[in-house]
Amino acid sequence: MHGYADNKEAHQRRLRRIEGQIRGLQRMVDEDKYCIDVLTQISAATRALQAVSLSLLDEHLQHCVRNAITEGGAETDEKIREASDAIARLVRS
Amino acid sequence: MHGYADNKEAHQRRLRRIEGQIRGLQRMVDEDKYCIDVLTQISAATRALQAVSLSLLDEHLQHCVRNAITEGGAETDEKIREASDAIARLVRS
Amino acid sequence: MHGYADNKEAHQRRLRRIEGQIRGLQRMVDEDKYCIDVLTQISAATRALQAVSLSLLDEHLQHCVRNAITEGGAETDEKIREASDAIARLVRS
Amino acid sequence: MHGYADNKEAHQRRLRRIEGQIRGLQRMVDEDKYCIDVLTQISAATRALQAVSLSLLDEHLQHCVRNAITEGGAETDEKIREASDAIARLVRS
Repeated sequence: MHGYADNKEAHQRRLRRIEGQIRGLQRMVDEDKYCIDVLTQISAATRALQAVSLSLLDEHLQHCVRNAITEGGAETDEKIREASDAIARLVRS
Repeated sequence: MHGYADNKEAHQRRLRRIEGQIRGLQRMVDEDKYCIDVLTQISAATRALQAVSLSLLDEHLQHCVRNAITEGGAETDEKIREASDAIARLVRS
Repeated sequence: MHGYADNKEAHQRRLRRIEGQIRGLQRMVDEDKYCIDVLTQISAATRALQAVSLSLLDEHLQHCVRNAITEGGAETDEKIREASDAIARLVRS
Repeated sequence: MHGYADNKEAHQRRLRRIEGQIRGLQRMVDEDKYCIDVLTQISAATRALQAVSLSLLDEHLQHCVRNAITEGGAETDEKIREASDAIARLVRS
């Protein structure tokens, strides 16, 4: 069971909406929509993806990292390092 | 004709690949893949969207903004302001 | 004369304010302020730097790129490519 | 004692270097350096600030969040929420 198990449906809804945004972008390019309008829609899709990331990361801290720390043991440091690396990738992307 | 007319096919290919990445993310969530692995894939999709943006923006400068400036007239300032606004949205998203 | 010549004083004021924010951060670390509060101030300084960038970039388009296009010649493509590269660095930083 | 106590000197050194970068930027503007070169230096300062953030955040997870979870109690949820909020601010700035 992963951190996001409780919100699986909410994440799927968001990802389906993002898939719709990407298909909308393909349509816009196909119909030669104005570059700036395409860019505005890409920014919206990027922000939506970012929101999914932030929500997954919060759940990861709430569950996986919290459990690893509560149980202690060798895995704890690894879990925290992994979370920090994911945060760094997110900040830099 | 818009700035990206010459590269329409390349943009469509990239957007279809991103659509595939989003569907891959839905599958990962469906199969309860590990949060950190989902986050890594979201970062990849975000970077791919960003690359489309940067490429559209470059073409917008190369064509639309360049044409507006060459032709002169009232529309020029508007075009440059529009490009700056799009850049700001992109930087902040 | 560069794109930002008219706003030199405004940029200097902003950069001095950012320098003050960085010195404030040193003081916070020195006084062992709470990590989260330090992070909040770093976000503020980062946003302030970003605002300077966006403003310089807008002026660059308004003046340097516009002049290069108006004058035409070999330098034009180079100027636009340079602007696109700067935008890419900004988006990725 | 905060999460970053062990690395205080390293953070101070980095912040002093960033202060030097900001003063370098003031000098560049003062000497009318080329916009694109100023932008490149701002990107460097932004990335340096981001590196301080990521390092503080990692130490915050390693110490403050870990201690709060180990000790349990009402403060734990608050600590995790606070970390998630800081991550969101960082990602969006």
